[in-house]
Amino acid sequence: MRAAPAALLSPRSIAVVGASDDVTKTASRPLRFLRAGGFGGAVYPVARRGTVMGERAFPTLSALPECPDHAFVLLPTEGAMAAVAECARLGIPAVTVLAGGFSEAGPEGAAREEALRESLRGTGTRLLGPNSIGLVNLHHRMVLTANAAFAEPDLPVGGAFVASQSGSMIGAILSRGRGRGLGFAGLVSVGAEVDLDLGSILAATLDDPKVTSYLLFLETLRGAGALRDFARGAAGRGKPVVAYKLGRSAEAAELAVSHTGALAGEDDVADAFLRDCGIARVDTLEGLLEAPALLRRIPIRGPGARRPVVGVVTTTGGGAAMVVDGLGVRGISVEAPGEATRARLTAAGIDPGHGRILDLTLAGVRPEVMGPALDALLAAPEYDLVVAVAGSSSRFQPELAVQPVVEAAKDRAHLASFCVPEAPQALAMLAEAGVPAFRTPEACADAIAAAFARRQPRPAVPAPARTGGEGRMLDEAEAYEILAGLGVPHAPCVALPADGAGREELPFPYPVAVKVLHPDILHKSDIGGVVLGVGSDDALAEAAARIVRSVAAHRPALGADRVLVQAMTRPLGEVLLGYRRDPQVGPVVLLAAGGVLTEILRDRSVRLAPVDHEGAREMIAEVRALRALEGYRGRPRGDMRALADAIVALSGLAGRGDVAECEINPLMVLEEGRGVLAVDAVIRLGGDGF
Amino acid sequence: MRAAPAALLSPRSIAVVGASDDVTKTASRPLRFLRAGGFGGAVYPVARRGTVMGERAFPTLSALPECPDHAFVLLPTEGAMAAVAECARLGIPAVTVLAGGFSEAGPEGAAREEALRESLRGTGTRLLGPNSIGLVNLHHRMVLTANAAFAEPDLPVGGAFVASQSGSMIGAILSRGRGRGLGFAGLVSVGAEVDLDLGSILAATLDDPKVTSYLLFLETLRGAGALRDFARGAAGRGKPVVAYKLGRSAEAAELAVSHTGALAGEDDVADAFLRDCGIARVDTLEGLLEAPALLRRIPIRGPGARRPVVGVVTTTGGGAAMVVDGLGVRGISVEAPGEATRARLTAAGIDPGHGRILDLTLAGVRPEVMGPALDALLAAPEYDLVVAVAGSSSRFQPELAVQPVVEAAKDRAHLASFCVPEAPQALAMLAEAGVPAFRTPEACADAIAAAFARRQPRPAVPAPARTGGEGRMLDEAEAYEILAGLGVPHAPCVALPADGAGREELPFPYPVAVKVLHPDILHKSDIGGVVLGVGSDDALAEAAARIVRSVAAHRPALGADRVLVQAMTRPLGEVLLGYRRDPQVGPVVLLAAGGVLTEILRDRSVRLAPVDHEGAREMIAEVRALRALEGYRGRPRGDMRALADAIVALSGLAGRGDVAECEINPLMVLEEGRGVLAVDAVIRLGGDGF
Repeated sequence: MRAAPAALLSPRSIAVVGASDDVTKTASRPLRFLRAGGFGGAVYPVARRGTVMGERAFPTLSALPECPDHAFVLLPTEGAMAAVAECARLGIPAVTVLAGGFSEAGPEGAAREEALRESLRGTGTRLLGPNSIGLVNLHHRMVLTANAAFAEPDLPVGGAFVASQSGSMIGAILSRGRGRGLGFAGLVSVGAEVDLDLGSILAATLDDPKVTSYLLFLETLRGAGALRDFARGAAGRGKPVVAYKLGRSAEAAELAVSHTGALAGEDDVADAFLRDCGIARVDTLEGLLEAPALLRRIPIRGPGARRPVVGVVTTTGGGAAMVVDGLGVRGISVEAPGEATRARLTAAGIDPGHGRILDLTLAGVRPEVMGPALDALLAAPEYDLVVAVAGSSSRFQPELAVQPVVEAAKDRAHLASFCVPEAPQALAMLAEAGVPAFRTPEACADAIAAAFARRQPRPAVPAPARTGGEGRMLDEAEAYEILAGLGVPHAPCVALPADGAGREELPFPYPVAVKVLHPDILHKSDIGGVVLGVGSDDALAEAAARIVRSVAAHRPALGADRVLVQAMTRPLGEVLLGYRRDPQVGPVVLLAAGGVLTEILRDRSVRLAPVDHEGAREMIAEVRALRALEGYRGRPRGDMRALADAIVALSGLAGRGDVAECEINPLMVLEEGRGVLAVDAVIRLGGDGF
Repeated sequence: MRAAPAALLSPRSIAVVGASDDVTKTASRPLRFLRAGGFGGAVYPVARRGTVMGERAFPTLSALPECPDHAFVLLPTEGAMAAVAECARLGIPAVTVLAGGFSEAGPEGAAREEALRESLRGTGTRLLGPNSIGLVNLHHRMVLTANAAFAEPDLPVGGAFVASQSGSMIGAILSRGRGRGLGFAGLVSVGAEVDLDLGSILAATLDDPKVTSYLLFLETLRGAGALRDFARGAAGRGKPVVAYKLGRSAEAAELAVSHTGALAGEDDVADAFLRDCGIARVDTLEGLLEAPALLRRIPIRGPGARRPVVGVVTTTGGGAAMVVDGLGVRGISVEAPGEATRARLTAAGIDPGHGRILDLTLAGVRPEVMGPALDALLAAPEYDLVVAVAGSSSRFQPELAVQPVVEAAKDRAHLASFCVPEAPQALAMLAEAGVPAFRTPEACADAIAAAFARRQPRPAVPAPARTGGEGRMLDEAEAYEILAGLGVPHAPCVALPADGAGREELPFPYPVAVKVLHPDILHKSDIGGVVLGVGSDDALAEAAARIVRSVAAHRPALGADRVLVQAMTRPLGEVLLGYRRDPQVGPVVLLAAGGVLTEILRDRSVRLAPVDHEGAREMIAEVRALRALEGYRGRPRGDMRALADAIVALSGLAGRGDVAECEINPLMVLEEGRGVLAVDAVIRLGGDGF
């Protein structure tokens, strides 16, 4: 029995179960497409009627003359379940199921899904789907799909392998690739990923030299571990992975969930995860197709790399300005050539002008000008990428417009091109030569931003053994103890019996804050559990008594009789620093500006834990409101180094098996040199955070 | 002598001055394109050699057998200037200049531009350009341009008229239109707009029934008055105007300036202006082409219209989700059908499902399903727009995919379509039928958002006569007086001689704020000019003396000896409310959240003054940080009605000829019912604000 992914991707023989003779039916397509594609192996239609499309059909899988490598099951739900069980019994290594009606279809569907899993258990048979529209391996001439888009002759063959959680998108991506002169090695609709997941399937293609890049269309995040392993393998082989993921908006996130029946894939966490895996995320559909060529040419940026700088050369100012605008909105600078580059241009007889872009409109479209101009910009140390923006010539004299770019791209990798007019020939020529080329200014800026944002994938952090305390909350003093152990400082405090408050000298001066101390009270202020600015022993005793009375009135059953007395601080600003263990991706750290605006403006940064100092600095830079603490307009600077230390320290919770969730809110940021101090904290022990 | 715009747009005779015989030269194109396009009028090449392209050429304009309607001057700068002077002398109504080298080329160029203007003065001759690549009127078969893109046969004719500040973009837009099955009535490169501006040229096409929409490619804002007049004329005739404007990013704004030599067109102001003119602004290049068909079908939304709601029907869940995501990011909801609509769908045998979109994937691509589904959604009162998202069928069976949409669009206007695969035929069929259709999910969401954001254009507010006080600053007390006259309240205050402070009873209780009072001190705190929380007569006298000493130490020449004593307030929040007279668009009002985050987060709203209550409410809704004052999560509500009143009142400055600029910072927002209070204000009298 062959291993499942190989049997799936390059089977020697295929059974098409439920193949239809009626060309109007979806179930007629796989057999037709297999034949039209010229598949070289054996194909066995399994159907009730004696022939399908003029081929001999077999009544059952067990009637086949051999055990096929792969069975594509086109039957409706119930029939599909029986067929899968039969495949498992017969030892067919790979089976793909088209039908839906499983966990996305409510409790009954979930039961069917469990039965499906059960029928595979203990067998060597692996399942693609259910709800998979099929799998195409163009280098193997295997077009095994029910997607109508594959009815075309001469499917565009190339190096990109596509995996999509939405079946219909494999057809859309194929046709759009063809329209752009971009070809594919294979396309797989991963369906509900009940057994084989996206990462595992793609991992089996990593060593195929004909596969040079990966395109993912994601609705949600599933199988995070396998996805990470695959992404690391791809990075190790220099094969870029690009993802378009739904869910930027709350509406779409909900849609993705209802559409696929997947668990909620919170977009921020998914975003942090993809980044951690070195997967470039694009926001435009065509960017997904066009980014890989760019990613193959832009090295992954290391920690602490300078802010990326782009140079632009053009024969059409307005067209180039669209790219500059798009990059600027994404925080990427287009800068004028430096002195040495200007001198080099001048020496080549090219007027470098005075603008941010090198505008050769006056010189006209002449290879003897564009060639040396590109050479000068590509040799310039100031540029991380050079973009050649081509005007009308790319439509009417594609050779003329494209040749200098193709030539320049032979020696230097960091070159891309955007064609301002509709210029399919020029785009195809550039694609053919492996030069990144873009059809719209939006996809161009999108892909460039995604390329620069890409990082080396990190290995998965081994999950610590889960230990004790399932679901238990800690009180504030206990939380500080854990934080102190990690190296996150908190404001000095003492826990006291409420009736003892004010009787002994405090280890810090007045004024102080007094708070009820109890693990089951999350929102202390709401029930009168906090008194601030307490200035004397008497006032402290009075405040503690008042707190106990008020809390008892609101929550009599708790028996809350302790208070935490804490030194008050004068911060420059405050942040929220959080940690939780996500069920899909594992431990994550969240940094947000403090206060009500945080939520309203969604001004925050998320990373997978553990976070190192470089990562912590990036997080601080991503929270825009924190610029107010970085010496903005002559204001005093906050202790951002201590904040970074605290982020790194908190992320160390990833190494503990007992903490599900921790939130420090607020963490006070003091003036530079004075550190940061937690003044409230909540920790929940146990399993996953929410 | 014909009127200039008519002579420009539909000349009976054209002189091509500087026409070249060398087909590799730009100057050879206009004559070739005119002939290839089949222009019906007389064409006179003006050139030194006796023939050009086998046609008889004339040595000078004065040697022509008649005075032509329009002269296209292809000569370099100096020659072009001479030719323009000659045109003016001969009484040629319209002249277009290709050459650059004017105000964008430094002081010498500016002098040349002035000379160019001077040569036109007092004559009937009007100029298009300089730096114009020409003008094309396809219904008039006039292809008068040096843009290489017009070398193609069978230019796509249609109803859209394009005006671009970037010459190269008319070719790019033409070719992209052709690629999308969209045609054009005409295209004009407006160049530097030294004489004829974009608005004036387009205004001359308003009554042409063959022109049904307008596409603007803007680098900056020029000729605001003419643009507004044109836009109002277009709105009155139901002809939508769409603009793509560079400058969303700071980088591109700078580029637009350096590229065109125009004055800085600050993007926020331009955005407010376009909105005020009823011009829909898109952010994607293809959205510019694709939006007009949608705008023709979506009525302009009146003040107080409900939040727009979109319904989506599809045969491809993943493809539809991309549109939902894009709309969600732009704040537009896609919602599930309501109860009555669900019942109607069910009655038609269509399962309405449980999701936000109506997903007909299981039903397959059948007109007998899609037709009734579209009918039900289009009849539903809950939807302002229905988007049909087509899958593979739009590529392979375009008739099948497009027919139900075309049919449904005959009865109901509010329908648009997005094709997920590359589907040029389906897009062309939809375009042919006038159904809005989109090639990318990004342009689809972009155009829909732009359509819903469109408002009825307002008439220009008559500018009051400029009166007195050129450039003079008012002190805080004088500023309050003007604000009070408008109806903007301020915190109670009295102006006192510094040495008299504390001697008489104040008309409001302590504590108070004490501030130096002098028109020439903008940043009082920086020079010790403010003391807060003053609690008694003695403290007041002391504070006033301290302020006078400190200010004298910093700015001895001022002789500042007065203070403003002001009641202190406890606000819920604070805002910045500003007004200035922009040199291009006139008076504008700015609302921003107060404090340092305002600048960092650029969280603000700009409108042209005057602003009515509806406009003020929109401004408040656009400043995201202000949601914290709208009862967010149980917080007390600020007096947003009073804030709206203050915005309306301040915008009344538009009626005064003497105020250039006013900034209230902060304007305190008190609890609901308690109003708002200005606690600092600056007013500059005189000309334009900056």
